[in-house]
Amino acid sequence: MPASPIRKLAPFAAAAKERGVKVYHLNIGQPDLPTPRKALDALKNIDRRTLEYSPSQGYASLREKLCGYYRRFGVEVTPDEITITAGGSEALLLTFLACLNPGDEIIVPEPCYANYLSFAVAAGVIVRTVTSTIENGFALPSVEEFEQAVTPRTRAILICNPNNPTGCLYSGEELHRLRDIVRGHDLYLIADEVYREFVYNGKPYLSTMCLEGIDENVIMVDSVSKRYSECGVRIGMVVTRNAAVRETILKFCQARLSPPLVGQIVAEASIEGTEDYARECFEEYKARRDFFIDGLNRIPGVYSPMPQGAFYTVASLPVDDAEDFCRWLLTDFEYRETPDSVPETVMMAPCAGFYSNHELGRRQVRVAYVLNIEDLRRALKVLDAALKVYCK
Amino acid sequence: MPASPIRKLAPFAAAAKERGVKVYHLNIGQPDLPTPRKALDALKNIDRRTLEYSPSQGYASLREKLCGYYRRFGVEVTPDEITITAGGSEALLLTFLACLNPGDEIIVPEPCYANYLSFAVAAGVIVRTVTSTIENGFALPSVEEFEQAVTPRTRAILICNPNNPTGCLYSGEELHRLRDIVRGHDLYLIADEVYREFVYNGKPYLSTMCLEGIDENVIMVDSVSKRYSECGVRIGMVVTRNAAVRETILKFCQARLSPPLVGQIVAEASIEGTEDYARECFEEYKARRDFFIDGLNRIPGVYSPMPQGAFYTVASLPVDDAEDFCRWLLTDFEYRETPDSVPETVMMAPCAGFYSNHELGRRQVRVAYVLNIEDLRRALKVLDAALKVYCK
Repeated sequence: MPASPIRKLAPFAAAAKERGVKVYHLNIGQPDLPTPRKALDALKNIDRRTLEYSPSQGYASLREKLCGYYRRFGVEVTPDEITITAGGSEALLLTFLACLNPGDEIIVPEPCYANYLSFAVAAGVIVRTVTSTIENGFALPSVEEFEQAVTPRTRAILICNPNNPTGCLYSGEELHRLRDIVRGHDLYLIADEVYREFVYNGKPYLSTMCLEGIDENVIMVDSVSKRYSECGVRIGMVVTRNAAVRETILKFCQARLSPPLVGQIVAEASIEGTEDYARECFEEYKARRDFFIDGLNRIPGVYSPMPQGAFYTVASLPVDDAEDFCRWLLTDFEYRETPDSVPETVMMAPCAGFYSNHELGRRQVRVAYVLNIEDLRRALKVLDAALKVYCK
Repeated sequence: MPASPIRKLAPFAAAAKERGVKVYHLNIGQPDLPTPRKALDALKNIDRRTLEYSPSQGYASLREKLCGYYRRFGVEVTPDEITITAGGSEALLLTFLACLNPGDEIIVPEPCYANYLSFAVAAGVIVRTVTSTIENGFALPSVEEFEQAVTPRTRAILICNPNNPTGCLYSGEELHRLRDIVRGHDLYLIADEVYREFVYNGKPYLSTMCLEGIDENVIMVDSVSKRYSECGVRIGMVVTRNAAVRETILKFCQARLSPPLVGQIVAEASIEGTEDYARECFEEYKARRDFFIDGLNRIPGVYSPMPQGAFYTVASLPVDDAEDFCRWLLTDFEYRETPDSVPETVMMAPCAGFYSNHELGRRQVRVAYVLNIEDLRRALKVLDAALKVYCK
């Protein structure tokens, strides 16, 4: 079981903070934006005598509102086709448990969200990766590469679109290629689409749920965490038209009894009447992206493609071992603007753990632009100064 | 993957309610008692701009307060030895994943909490059962029975004390016998102790964490759900002095990022200054137990031992197939006090699913006395009337 590359350096960050160092957290997708006012009000207005279990599948009222939400993205589903989970994390774990047996194989483009690998370990599933590269903007690997990864034990392909960690947005053409592979081998297509609100190419988002001819194959994983800046409420969902998969997932849901009650109330209040909020968040992330990626690429030796979605990028650094550099930033480095300034440093997620072959990510980091532009400016300055010292 | 016996009849109950039938829920341990005022106030007073992730291990402040709580039961642990989870359910699942490999065996006294079996399926673990019987009040099976169940693949014994579903409370002598078995074979002892507040024999509760000589073996699973009537907040915990187990659990916790934020705030507010609340709950459950078990045993053909803990009992019924009877109660039966009265029925959990050999539980039901005494009186009346019709 590998340690999460997103959180494994957390003790060093805590120690740095105890020394009085200000740490800019680029390591985790914890948006700094506020949760919608409407959702916070719903929380304040909870007027219950008993905070009781909710239905195992989640409240019907929440699932109904979600149908309306998905419709805005061209996805037509019924409340029955939605299961509420404890965050996207549980959605992924339950999908793995429901669709895959121990020893089954799943194909994942890498670098990939590192926790996929942890959930695979939990479910006893073997991950085969196809590699996307920084040189071509982390585009979806070719049909040939997928075909070469298919074995008799392959049961599913897992994608994240827009992609965490790379920020890559797969094109309609890429998704249709994927559809053909899925149909050809009758695989599940598990699609983590939690970043659909954050698409910067100006085109409508294409969900895997809209790909024709694979209705029974697609399982969409979703979460309210990122789009409403409410990661702490732990509300995610599994959406699929495949009744057998839903039935198995429901059994696991019954075993863990109930998704979080309060989180469901907050999530439900977030869905309608928050269009202005969503637009503001989108504009803010877009501005941050433009500012931050430009800033990264101005640092000598640093390269990041321009991400088209989500709020992450994978950047290459002029270092031999990004994990060592990231740890050093927390343990040995601090930047002071002036001798009297508060010391500052940056926390990033080293990328080795996002690849099955750690070597491929040895010089890369994942960074999330979830800080305001002023903090991003500071973080870039710290990173620039740190590299000058570290690479000397 | 078996369906949960606690929730599998839920669609029939929903249909009964739609027909206007009042259903008394004896099937699930969802207390009707209020959540502590202090906890509800903490919920109302949450004043945050962003509902963000919390630390993967859970808030330190909550873990510190829990140390004080456990101390009241003679259990000395440090905050580091506690991991916060999404309910006792996740605590169990993560304990299984951390301690056991697919194919490993675990010994569980049956009848057992049915969801243990589901989590075992999720972790690829094989459950071997030792059978406790209604005739001797579901006491812990003998040393010989445990020894016979041990194989080279056995890694753990799992107990629930006080017991769900039987209400049995294991004696100090029984626990010491268990300790010797655990030590003799160097097994993990996973102890679900969520009902420690509800012990009716007047003696202090003995936690497995207090058994000498097996510090590294014991993993205690806990939850705030039952004792503060806040099942919906989904806050549980794993407590162990075994650092290696904690480390592995933490990796899984990092993969799922964070336990529920709001739930932790509610749970933390529930721990201190709620002594009066706890006493009132205890007195209420004790009174219900006395009333309900007496009432059950007055129904011809029904037998229940007197449970010494928790708020469940397993009762035998004068029927050939309790599952059929429980379904029939929801689909075909309704009781009217007078022709104009609201029709009523009862929902119970058939016990077959609490045994690996379903035959053993064929005539038994698990009932939870989590309703007020007036409702329990009604439920008993309905059950009595129903058996007269069903057994005719």
